[in-house]
Amino acid sequence: MMDLTNEIEQHYEDMVAIRRHMHMHPEVSFEEENTKRYIYEQIRDLGFDIRQDVGGNGIVARLHVNDDYKTVGLRADFDALPIQDEKDVPYRSTNPGVMHACGHDAHTAMLITAARILAAHKEELPVNVVLIHQHAEELLPGGAKAMIEDGALEDVDYVFGTHVSSLYPVGTLSYTYDYAFASADAFSIEIEGRGGHGAEPHEAIDPVVAAASLIQQMQSIVSRTIDPLKSAVVTVSTFNGGSSFNVIPNTVEISGTIRTFEKEVKEKVRQRIEGIIRGIESSFDVKCHLKYTEGYPALLNDNGQLDHTLNVLKDASYVKTCEENPPSMGGEDFSYFLQERPGCYFYTGVRNTDIGADQPHHHPLFDIDERGMKAGVEALVKIVTGFEE
Amino acid sequence: MMDLTNEIEQHYEDMVAIRRHMHMHPEVSFEEENTKRYIYEQIRDLGFDIRQDVGGNGIVARLHVNDDYKTVGLRADFDALPIQDEKDVPYRSTNPGVMHACGHDAHTAMLITAARILAAHKEELPVNVVLIHQHAEELLPGGAKAMIEDGALEDVDYVFGTHVSSLYPVGTLSYTYDYAFASADAFSIEIEGRGGHGAEPHEAIDPVVAAASLIQQMQSIVSRTIDPLKSAVVTVSTFNGGSSFNVIPNTVEISGTIRTFEKEVKEKVRQRIEGIIRGIESSFDVKCHLKYTEGYPALLNDNGQLDHTLNVLKDASYVKTCEENPPSMGGEDFSYFLQERPGCYFYTGVRNTDIGADQPHHHPLFDIDERGMKAGVEALVKIVTGFEE
Amino acid sequence: MMDLTNEIEQHYEDMVAIRRHMHMHPEVSFEEENTKRYIYEQIRDLGFDIRQDVGGNGIVARLHVNDDYKTVGLRADFDALPIQDEKDVPYRSTNPGVMHACGHDAHTAMLITAARILAAHKEELPVNVVLIHQHAEELLPGGAKAMIEDGALEDVDYVFGTHVSSLYPVGTLSYTYDYAFASADAFSIEIEGRGGHGAEPHEAIDPVVAAASLIQQMQSIVSRTIDPLKSAVVTVSTFNGGSSFNVIPNTVEISGTIRTFEKEVKEKVRQRIEGIIRGIESSFDVKCHLKYTEGYPALLNDNGQLDHTLNVLKDASYVKTCEENPPSMGGEDFSYFLQERPGCYFYTGVRNTDIGADQPHHHPLFDIDERGMKAGVEALVKIVTGFEE
Amino acid sequence: MMDLTNEIEQHYEDMVAIRRHMHMHPEVSFEEENTKRYIYEQIRDLGFDIRQDVGGNGIVARLHVNDDYKTVGLRADFDALPIQDEKDVPYRSTNPGVMHACGHDAHTAMLITAARILAAHKEELPVNVVLIHQHAEELLPGGAKAMIEDGALEDVDYVFGTHVSSLYPVGTLSYTYDYAFASADAFSIEIEGRGGHGAEPHEAIDPVVAAASLIQQMQSIVSRTIDPLKSAVVTVSTFNGGSSFNVIPNTVEISGTIRTFEKEVKEKVRQRIEGIIRGIESSFDVKCHLKYTEGYPALLNDNGQLDHTLNVLKDASYVKTCEENPPSMGGEDFSYFLQERPGCYFYTGVRNTDIGADQPHHHPLFDIDERGMKAGVEALVKIVTGFEE
Repeated sequence: MMDLTNEIEQHYEDMVAIRRHMHMHPEVSFEEENTKRYIYEQIRDLGFDIRQDVGGNGIVARLHVNDDYKTVGLRADFDALPIQDEKDVPYRSTNPGVMHACGHDAHTAMLITAARILAAHKEELPVNVVLIHQHAEELLPGGAKAMIEDGALEDVDYVFGTHVSSLYPVGTLSYTYDYAFASADAFSIEIEGRGGHGAEPHEAIDPVVAAASLIQQMQSIVSRTIDPLKSAVVTVSTFNGGSSFNVIPNTVEISGTIRTFEKEVKEKVRQRIEGIIRGIESSFDVKCHLKYTEGYPALLNDNGQLDHTLNVLKDASYVKTCEENPPSMGGEDFSYFLQERPGCYFYTGVRNTDIGADQPHHHPLFDIDERGMKAGVEALVKIVTGFEE
Repeated sequence: MMDLTNEIEQHYEDMVAIRRHMHMHPEVSFEEENTKRYIYEQIRDLGFDIRQDVGGNGIVARLHVNDDYKTVGLRADFDALPIQDEKDVPYRSTNPGVMHACGHDAHTAMLITAARILAAHKEELPVNVVLIHQHAEELLPGGAKAMIEDGALEDVDYVFGTHVSSLYPVGTLSYTYDYAFASADAFSIEIEGRGGHGAEPHEAIDPVVAAASLIQQMQSIVSRTIDPLKSAVVTVSTFNGGSSFNVIPNTVEISGTIRTFEKEVKEKVRQRIEGIIRGIESSFDVKCHLKYTEGYPALLNDNGQLDHTLNVLKDASYVKTCEENPPSMGGEDFSYFLQERPGCYFYTGVRNTDIGADQPHHHPLFDIDERGMKAGVEALVKIVTGFEE
Repeated sequence: MMDLTNEIEQHYEDMVAIRRHMHMHPEVSFEEENTKRYIYEQIRDLGFDIRQDVGGNGIVARLHVNDDYKTVGLRADFDALPIQDEKDVPYRSTNPGVMHACGHDAHTAMLITAARILAAHKEELPVNVVLIHQHAEELLPGGAKAMIEDGALEDVDYVFGTHVSSLYPVGTLSYTYDYAFASADAFSIEIEGRGGHGAEPHEAIDPVVAAASLIQQMQSIVSRTIDPLKSAVVTVSTFNGGSSFNVIPNTVEISGTIRTFEKEVKEKVRQRIEGIIRGIESSFDVKCHLKYTEGYPALLNDNGQLDHTLNVLKDASYVKTCEENPPSMGGEDFSYFLQERPGCYFYTGVRNTDIGADQPHHHPLFDIDERGMKAGVEALVKIVTGFEE
Repeated sequence: MMDLTNEIEQHYEDMVAIRRHMHMHPEVSFEEENTKRYIYEQIRDLGFDIRQDVGGNGIVARLHVNDDYKTVGLRADFDALPIQDEKDVPYRSTNPGVMHACGHDAHTAMLITAARILAAHKEELPVNVVLIHQHAEELLPGGAKAMIEDGALEDVDYVFGTHVSSLYPVGTLSYTYDYAFASADAFSIEIEGRGGHGAEPHEAIDPVVAAASLIQQMQSIVSRTIDPLKSAVVTVSTFNGGSSFNVIPNTVEISGTIRTFEKEVKEKVRQRIEGIIRGIESSFDVKCHLKYTEGYPALLNDNGQLDHTLNVLKDASYVKTCEENPPSMGGEDFSYFLQERPGCYFYTGVRNTDIGADQPHHHPLFDIDERGMKAGVEALVKIVTGFEE
């Protein structure tokens, strides 16, 4: 049997090097040319069957153990963000305006490390293993969907993944039963009236007042239509129209975001928005043009596989605490994998206030305590080895 | 020629007696059985051709002077109100719950007095005269329309009328060019949702929130759709729905009034209301049932005949002041007569604070300074005698 | 050891008799004079130390087993509702307009039966037992609070209770971890403007438009201020004001209910309501008078005691299924007991569509399948006997 | 006596030349350096006592006839607009981006022509004459106020002015009793909440919803607070805030215009706006920052002087029609002169569809039928000569 604690320790320096290399050379979503090559090189010689350019820049690598075994997929995303790195560290981003500000570099480093450990113990594994290195998580439509359509889940029975988090300290894993991330849709509505002089409203059709009423009516979606025991957010974030204080504009435009978990809640929100838009058209004699963009679906964990995960971590070394937390209203395209296969997704703590690793994700000063990655690797490996043949 | 000032003086006691008799025996709209008989008796022997029961309880009486002459109609209404008289005077109403709280008794007394004076000078008159004693001004659909349909204006060329007013002192006439009274429509809207427990709004369709939005959208009719140089009022006066604090009701009902002058303004208001109702239905998934009741049309004076009136009163005795005032947002069914014939309508002051004759119309303590009626009679007679043959 | 299954069977006929007696003689909250005497008689001779008139009509009865033992309290409420019984059954209510339409008769019958079984096995019991027969659950301020203040929980270590439910079939228990019932507050707001004629809004201060805006602003409490992962309901159920279509009223009044679980959510809702009321006063120059009535607090189960309950029922006879369900937005004053002592509250299924036992609670045709009470008794007894000495 | 008709004809060519010179060399408000010099040269030798740089670029010129005579002021404004002239005519603007798109060039040409005619008949004049050539009518705070403060109305008893209009044909004068132009104020309101993630509204204070409610409440100012027989406009023309669909902004800003006639109406509007702003602050926990800019006051004609004007034009040659029209909701700083002295302001028709002189004012293709200026000169001269000594 492997001495996992010790092996993680031995791999730690390399894992940090991988993470830092990626941190210094970030690439934004769908443009991860160098990153995908770098990952390929890291896993090329481990004995995996590797498919490159899966659904875009994705990589799928299979460690085949036994035809009769189940197969466990482990996923890590590897794209960066269009944010300028403002940290003053040796591994600071060298790509101006691009930064690993969400920790996908760490995800990749952890998965490669887990792959190395698993590969070294291939003969002992109770399941086959598939690495899913996913591009483009940060930008709609995301890489997950395309990778699945391109076969990433073929012969895969379960899928697991983890996201580092600056909210939880090193050694803590955070999990959520059922829904863990929200569905995140976007909408914009152009309200078209008829412009005119501000002194002569009766000659115009005022889109500003119509839009104000629209926004107010939208409040009643969450307050009246959605089950109070369910969650939904309808936010109007932008309102833009008009340029002169005494000219009624022809049109104004609002945009916003919708967050839900259950599909039927999402559908109800959308139906009400569409009804309200038709209503405002009739009430104010305007035309409303809705542009609705579906984001990632809500991420729904399989509670059985989450229990499996919690179970195999009971005697872990680096994972000291598993903490149940409420779901996040944010989005995550690992949800597509979980729509297809049972599995789960959890947070791996990398917070350390002493070294400044406590900035929010997507912040120009975001950083992690790299030692937190040890717990992540431990979890990934134990999820695999904890299965029964 | 007649000495009008003196003759009015001589008739004054009788005029007061008529007014007080009517004041003691008021009858509500459409039920003026005794009143119509009383009026008939007062004018029976004056030489007029009298038609009774015109369009209901109305009386039309013609003093024929000359086939070649024009004919001037003078109108007075004679119905009372369902209000309990709370005055402590000898001529207090003897009909419980019914009261001449708007001065129609005075209108009738003035018209009968004018008829007597005119009849006494029949040979000198430059025009034929028609008395129009109208029933039911206070209650929709009013008596004017039915009397006209029943021929009240046949062979009548001009129509005039006056209303006493506790706003203006004895001796003052108040007039308004163009529109003098508003069109007064009524509406009620039932908003039908689906009731339910207050703790489970998502299982119900909340008609309260829908109605609140409806009321707010209705504010934009006057503020945005109506020409700021025109007048319009849209008032929601009642809102009734729900009986328990934790039960969402099935339906709520609102009602209100709409005041306008120009027909196109009225139409715009109605169109917006109908559009808003359809809009609320779509926005909140409710059903709205509108009941719209047309009230009297706006009263539009003929400015030429108003000038005639002002002109003949220049050297009057009892009419000391003619004062121009803004129109009233109230309604008056003399408007139907003015839709058919040129003429005008004005106020005759009967206010006297010293004797308590300063209560608003329709008030349980409403009363008049009867001496103000002298100016009214003077105006009616002079309007007639001031015509040219 | 007791053969509980068999003993319940033997007691069943009596339990039904108790339930039916109470069903035929229901008494409304705080007026349960005959009911309390009846219950007293049922438990008088069982060996309990009985305190009557605890905090009103409540009864507390102690079965003392051993000074060193813990004490378990079992609570059943016994008041009825001001509803006319419309069922056609032999045990129909004989008290016109009053009815056990929520099943409190069954609660009492189950607790008395449990008491009889427990008393018969007094020597074997691992804990002392306290019966808490509570009056007045249906009407604020409820009987629970007064009973506690009058010592009902003295020397009691744990409290348990159950409510029958027509939602769940016979043999099913339904439970909820953490919050199981909401806090249910009530409010009414009088909005005081200044009445006037509907045609002259500028002379009045319109409370209808102010109230409409208030209702709309209240929607933003749930939609914007409350964490989407928490629950809150703010319902305006009644809106009453105005009696004539053309008279702006002086005041209108709205009322409604507020449902929350966490205290801080409840406080936020109340703060926003108070802020909105002040805002509406300033925006529309009205006065708002808020009357806020605190209802029962949210019912928070002790998860440990709930696990105890589920555990002792694993090999039950009559309890065939224990089903986890979301919390109810309704209220229940058993919450006061759980604020003081660990314990839990759960539903006992009494639904049977075949015999019409599927009407909602508080319905004039509400009835239960009495066989469901067997599972309730089984649960109560097992909760007690399942403790360790 | 002068043969005015003939003299206007003789001056016509020069008048056109003046207008076209100005049209080719327009200067925007407060920057009329060349224009003021040009005007000075045109009137230098007519026998007027000329004061330059009155209150800025204004010119005041006095033709003194007799110490005992009253003095009549005639005002013409002379600034242009920051609009690109898009006409294809020989007299097109030579100053890029600047254009006489409102006809102030014509006003000046008419006043200079009137001055020449009056000067030639100085001895016959019944009054002294003062020319008021005003700069900067188009831009707040306007030139009128400063000119008055600098003595432009010293020893002036009456003031008159006219504005050309492309709405009325050549030969038509349009007038309005009482208020002829509205007061035009501007406002902007910054609504300051607290930004945050669109998925977490409870962590933010949403200024968008607050602003929507503010706009809706503002509708009730005109619909409920303002006398329906008076005019008021409250327009929100711009609403700008937020840049990302999922980020709640810190602040949004709205701006708009307020039009009223009577001062008390204006005050009521402003009071309501301030009350609403305070209300929104309380309702939504935001801060509102109001910037209120007073525009020109409403222009109130002296009806006596307007009657004088209409009277002297009864037998005019070029003025063929005097037409009463409703007031304009636009603004005009001649109102400051009329606040100080009796007088009136009217429109002079210059419309001619055949030659394209029918574009709205401030339009890049705006032009006039220059023959309309004859009627304007005729009116100005006759107003002066029509006075009695």
